Amino acid sequence: MQNKRKIINDPVFGFINIPSDFHYDLIQHPYFQRLNRIKQLGLASLVYPGAQHTRLQHSLGAMHLTSEAITQLRSHGHEITEDEANGVLTAILLHDIGHGPFSHVLENIITKDISHEEISMLMMQKINAEMNGKLELALSIFTNKYKKKFLHQLLSGQLDMDRMDYLRRDSFYSGVTEGNIGSARIIKMLDIKNDQLVVEAKGIYSIEQFLIARRLMYWQVYLHKTAVAAEKMLNNILQRAHELAMNGTTLFASPSLHYFLYHNVSKKIFIENPEALEHFALLDDSDLTSAIKVWASHPDIVLSTLSHSFTNRKLFKIIIGDNLSFDEKTEEDLQHYSHTYNISKEEARYFVASGMVSSNTYKADDDNINILYKDGSTKDICAASDMLDLSILSRKIEKQYYCYLRK
Amino acid sequence: MQNKRKIINDPVFGFINIPSDFHYDLIQHPYFQRLNRIKQLGLASLVYPGAQHTRLQHSLGAMHLTSEAITQLRSHGHEITEDEANGVLTAILLHDIGHGPFSHVLENIITKDISHEEISMLMMQKINAEMNGKLELALSIFTNKYKKKFLHQLLSGQLDMDRMDYLRRDSFYSGVTEGNIGSARIIKMLDIKNDQLVVEAKGIYSIEQFLIARRLMYWQVYLHKTAVAAEKMLNNILQRAHELAMNGTTLFASPSLHYFLYHNVSKKIFIENPEALEHFALLDDSDLTSAIKVWASHPDIVLSTLSHSFTNRKLFKIIIGDNLSFDEKTEEDLQHYSHTYNISKEEARYFVASGMVSSNTYKADDDNINILYKDGSTKDICAASDMLDLSILSRKIEKQYYCYLRK
Amino acid sequence: MQNKRKIINDPVFGFINIPSDFHYDLIQHPYFQRLNRIKQLGLASLVYPGAQHTRLQHSLGAMHLTSEAITQLRSHGHEITEDEANGVLTAILLHDIGHGPFSHVLENIITKDISHEEISMLMMQKINAEMNGKLELALSIFTNKYKKKFLHQLLSGQLDMDRMDYLRRDSFYSGVTEGNIGSARIIKMLDIKNDQLVVEAKGIYSIEQFLIARRLMYWQVYLHKTAVAAEKMLNNILQRAHELAMNGTTLFASPSLHYFLYHNVSKKIFIENPEALEHFALLDDSDLTSAIKVWASHPDIVLSTLSHSFTNRKLFKIIIGDNLSFDEKTEEDLQHYSHTYNISKEEARYFVASGMVSSNTYKADDDNINILYKDGSTKDICAASDMLDLSILSRKIEKQYYCYLRK
Amino acid sequence: MQNKRKIINDPVFGFINIPSDFHYDLIQHPYFQRLNRIKQLGLASLVYPGAQHTRLQHSLGAMHLTSEAITQLRSHGHEITEDEANGVLTAILLHDIGHGPFSHVLENIITKDISHEEISMLMMQKINAEMNGKLELALSIFTNKYKKKFLHQLLSGQLDMDRMDYLRRDSFYSGVTEGNIGSARIIKMLDIKNDQLVVEAKGIYSIEQFLIARRLMYWQVYLHKTAVAAEKMLNNILQRAHELAMNGTTLFASPSLHYFLYHNVSKKIFIENPEALEHFALLDDSDLTSAIKVWASHPDIVLSTLSHSFTNRKLFKIIIGDNLSFDEKTEEDLQHYSHTYNISKEEARYFVASGMVSSNTYKADDDNINILYKDGSTKDICAASDMLDLSILSRKIEKQYYCYLRK
Repeated sequence: MQNKRKIINDPVFGFINIPSDFHYDLIQHPYFQRLNRIKQLGLASLVYPGAQHTRLQHSLGAMHLTSEAITQLRSHGHEITEDEANGVLTAILLHDIGHGPFSHVLENIITKDISHEEISMLMMQKINAEMNGKLELALSIFTNKYKKKFLHQLLSGQLDMDRMDYLRRDSFYSGVTEGNIGSARIIKMLDIKNDQLVVEAKGIYSIEQFLIARRLMYWQVYLHKTAVAAEKMLNNILQRAHELAMNGTTLFASPSLHYFLYHNVSKKIFIENPEALEHFALLDDSDLTSAIKVWASHPDIVLSTLSHSFTNRKLFKIIIGDNLSFDEKTEEDLQHYSHTYNISKEEARYFVASGMVSSNTYKADDDNINILYKDGSTKDICAASDMLDLSILSRKIEKQYYCYLRK
Repeated sequence: MQNKRKIINDPVFGFINIPSDFHYDLIQHPYFQRLNRIKQLGLASLVYPGAQHTRLQHSLGAMHLTSEAITQLRSHGHEITEDEANGVLTAILLHDIGHGPFSHVLENIITKDISHEEISMLMMQKINAEMNGKLELALSIFTNKYKKKFLHQLLSGQLDMDRMDYLRRDSFYSGVTEGNIGSARIIKMLDIKNDQLVVEAKGIYSIEQFLIARRLMYWQVYLHKTAVAAEKMLNNILQRAHELAMNGTTLFASPSLHYFLYHNVSKKIFIENPEALEHFALLDDSDLTSAIKVWASHPDIVLSTLSHSFTNRKLFKIIIGDNLSFDEKTEEDLQHYSHTYNISKEEARYFVASGMVSSNTYKADDDNINILYKDGSTKDICAASDMLDLSILSRKIEKQYYCYLRK
Repeated sequence: MQNKRKIINDPVFGFINIPSDFHYDLIQHPYFQRLNRIKQLGLASLVYPGAQHTRLQHSLGAMHLTSEAITQLRSHGHEITEDEANGVLTAILLHDIGHGPFSHVLENIITKDISHEEISMLMMQKINAEMNGKLELALSIFTNKYKKKFLHQLLSGQLDMDRMDYLRRDSFYSGVTEGNIGSARIIKMLDIKNDQLVVEAKGIYSIEQFLIARRLMYWQVYLHKTAVAAEKMLNNILQRAHELAMNGTTLFASPSLHYFLYHNVSKKIFIENPEALEHFALLDDSDLTSAIKVWASHPDIVLSTLSHSFTNRKLFKIIIGDNLSFDEKTEEDLQHYSHTYNISKEEARYFVASGMVSSNTYKADDDNINILYKDGSTKDICAASDMLDLSILSRKIEKQYYCYLRK
Repeated sequence: MQNKRKIINDPVFGFINIPSDFHYDLIQHPYFQRLNRIKQLGLASLVYPGAQHTRLQHSLGAMHLTSEAITQLRSHGHEITEDEANGVLTAILLHDIGHGPFSHVLENIITKDISHEEISMLMMQKINAEMNGKLELALSIFTNKYKKKFLHQLLSGQLDMDRMDYLRRDSFYSGVTEGNIGSARIIKMLDIKNDQLVVEAKGIYSIEQFLIARRLMYWQVYLHKTAVAAEKMLNNILQRAHELAMNGTTLFASPSLHYFLYHNVSKKIFIENPEALEHFALLDDSDLTSAIKVWASHPDIVLSTLSHSFTNRKLFKIIIGDNLSFDEKTEEDLQHYSHTYNISKEEARYFVASGMVSSNTYKADDDNINILYKDGSTKDICAASDMLDLSILSRKIEKQYYCYLRK
């Protein structure tokens, strides 16, 4: 159809071509359009106000890079058929459709035992049914059942196009320019060896920089203290709302948010009851943002205090340290809140939170980055690099934090 | 207080310094934080998916440029006292707080006879009262009552810092890179003559480019056909919702949106009844986005059809032409919708819209751009430029359009 | 050969692919490598110190854009065979090889009646002979003898890839960011109609902006007063050196520079005597820069004064005005120099210069920009644009200047 | 003087302000202007054709960043007087004036036992004498004799403004975008503790990234194999030319290049004989480039072969490995060249080269990066970072190479 808009402006990559009418239709699907109402970085936008970009843009960007990677791999003589190319482009385009509002926040609270990847899967299956099985190959690649394993690695692996896009994009929009990675250079160095993605030896420095930039983005942006505090606050708000709902309290909510607040929706229900997925597909950031503003005037002092503070960016204060040192302060704080707000200590627990953020930059065991030498041999990046040290890169960094309502 | 975060990351300008604790408090004010939930470009983000930036960022950026302009003007020996600097920085920071959801869309529909500038004014007065009159000077500059007229020009005029920021920022986020303007160069060329902002003669080419880039951004982004179609669709949705509400139909809405749907809120009410402003201050993009998704299942076929289409980006089709040619098609379309949806022709009118977009790049009469020569004389840019022609630049371009629901 | 480097890093476009081994060999040809020693912007680098980029980079960039344009045109269904693609890529790659040191400066002084285009032609013919006729098609396109006329337009015309590259590149390197053009967008809008390059109607605003940005770059960069003054100074230095040489004075010079200083090399000689082209092919910016530094200590007071001033950036002062007003000042200045330096008034003439810079943004007569409408009709941009006015755009702007040695 | 141009366009930082008339005069000094004829990256421009930027630009950029660092440090309450600010700005502006053509290449060949820092010092002293002692404070800071040691650290140390500029600038111009560093963020985190520059704790990740980016730039750009090969080739050319010169062979050369070719200029001579410095101050890239082109036709087969190859970018081939493995190949190669070119094996040595490139990212012993915690304590970055490991970062990486003329 000549009418379908084939080029999308993207501040990061210039122009993104939609590869086919089929992909255009996928982009126009309500499941996909929903991603335009979910921020890629969730609450990190409260720290980096420029970072308002959405999962829709990210998905388009990842598709764009995948198509560049395909061109690159084909230029090395590796066969990727048109069907396979379409399949992997479809899979990367849809890899995030199962994300809920504010990305990961809703997980583990309202949708208890089902991951966003599993929901993505359910949604892709639904679209597949609507489209008469046109997504079969994409699903096969997505679930890593397809014979050519490197195609799956393009969407999920140490060097997947998902990361290539989000690191560049998040760096661009947050203004943390030094988190920028050389995605174009890395893609130009990609090759395949034994059905695995590998990187030519002269790309070693770019890979090192990629790993370090990723680490920077984790601590500087994704796990920024203030973003973590905001996330815990939102967590507590939703948990309190859920508790009130299950006790029969009336809460303002859009019907779909209402559904998740007033039910315990398990994985089993998601699979068996189509209603769950239907409601999920109607949820986005706006339902929560709008409801929480209303909850700021709710009679429940716990819910209203948290909601009011959250809406007006009076976020939890957060301190980093070790757990032991938090105990005393927690006790004091709970007493303070209990007394000040005239609530039980149990209820006061909603005004504090603790936990651990952790990041390990590189895990060689599950999926490693292999460097390809001119003689055809390969080595893990940690062995190949004279600088990176597996023992350090794979060391899991953990930071314990405690956060609490401003007094 | 040493704890106040003084630097904000901005992808456009790098870092933005918050000039003082007072400005930090203004930024933390709920009225200002609300701007972080209102997109700068409203529905143009449906055309340019990168353009998700908010009015909050724009306001910070405009403040940043204003502080650079102050430095520049002082370096030419013009006195701007600390109080005046604070005043103009405050005024530019708050100049947009009166904007409603999706920027201009709500105006003229729900808030009928009051402009966003007037609401900004009401809000600034409210903050002024809360802050014991600390905004007096800012208000005086904002309303152009202050003796030094050039200070007002920094916030509102042909070369104000509002435009300097939004043109660069909208170009950056939309990816329409050729709409970029030389804001830094223009600011370096600013001077004052007879209490008016003027531009040094060697800045003529930058001013020409600024006017042309602004024109490009108007037609390419702000008045993009698809964005106009989306805006008219949202318009019709809200008008239908308002009509239904006034007839007593039940509609899902947050309490504050409810207030505006179920009342005719005039300027008089805004001024006399504090409730109006309170509700307005709680409205943002999320209330509309969330409600419209719910309305997609409303029993009213007109509201649900429009809301469903809007949410899933099945926007009005739009054609440009002259009014006469639209009449016949309109008639046909109304008949079609009336028949297809089994609704009255009156109701079918919600499925179409027509109007005119217009832009005139430069109006020399209300406020002109003056070029300063080395001999101290000044000339209007149209006289100074060998290329620009007043008759052309000030010619009002008007385009009539007609849009209608996809069949 | 697997050893040939196929990707070149380019700060403007990211990566540039060398399309084939044949083009790699052309790039490695001494004639082409010479371009890496000739600055694209000549003396404008004295005003914009960032603008040190070379004609080699520009040529690679123009080739890159041409290959994007070919992809675009093919996607519209226009046939461009592999041979034709190779031909036009070759032609654009080599279009500038005939440029002399400091670009245009040497023309009209030392090489009197032969243009750089004619020298490019001679060099391409020489390479063609060396390469057994592999450049035949490229030559045919270059000289506009090839049947498909639009191929020639890609290298020479109102919207050629030469301009697309140099405007973006010069804007990038000079830091005059507002001179940036939407080359990617314009290329995406290219089509062919009646064997002519045309631009889709929705690209009108980009074309307007392109014309205006080009105009900005002319006045802000290419014809910058200080750059013009530097160019006239270099002119006078070479003319004086040539005069001294023809009178038998000894001058330091590399053998190839020596050849042009001590002969009057006409077009006829260029064609008939291979020695001329050989020497020309060994000349670049370094020969002049190095020699002029040496001339700063030459016994001839005129040559040494000019050379010393030039080397140490004590450039001519320049004033813009009308010729009449210059006469009196010229007379005074000549007297002053004649007296101060104890030279004849004839010799003093080397210390002043006058002339006219002119630019007309758009000449519709020789080659126009045609806009293609959906109904298949075309219109000249001046008729299609509601803003541009042929009478204004095609008006030739002329500025008279006078420059003179600082006293 | 109101006529002095106070703003310089810079593609990296936008605009650079010249802080005072005094600094303007320094910039106009012939010694400083010479830097505009010396490429910052020397022969790396043969690999990265975009990297043509000069030492002049770099020096201006480093001055710009220093003035930002001064503003930052003052905002923390540290006193830096106007005189001290002027002194450190002067010192950083002039820190590179002693560099010879192609940066380091000439060192150790022609100027045997004097470093470019020592020549910078001699030149600054000369300017100081011309300017009646106005550079005294700058000299005192430059030589680290000034009481406030942190001022010297701004120009020479692990986090000096020299590196901050060159890493960003070289990344920008080479197009190796992932080598970009967060110079603005690092400067915002600078503080002083015990008269030492320190970085606030929240800047740790930026410092890690800075160290890694620097490492990337070393291996990807500064020590790029092809750049090293080119440098060795230039080395051998100059050594051969020097040898021929000392044997009385006639060589084309500008008088200043002639001086260094036909003398053994030691440090002693530099200090005692003003002629040496005068000649050095007239040397730049153009003298070598121009001469080597001429030498390509010299009767000496060694000099002409190398010069011809160099000029036409037929650079040495280079292999990385260990020394032992090179011995056999070297022997073979020497025999080949000796036979092919009919030269002695001694002469054939000019057609090969070997050596070692090494880089250690961080040496904690000479000057370390200290992190400042909120409690006022400081730690070395290696102790503060959970990722960086002193043993790894300070490990000296050495790579042995062998390069030889293409056959």
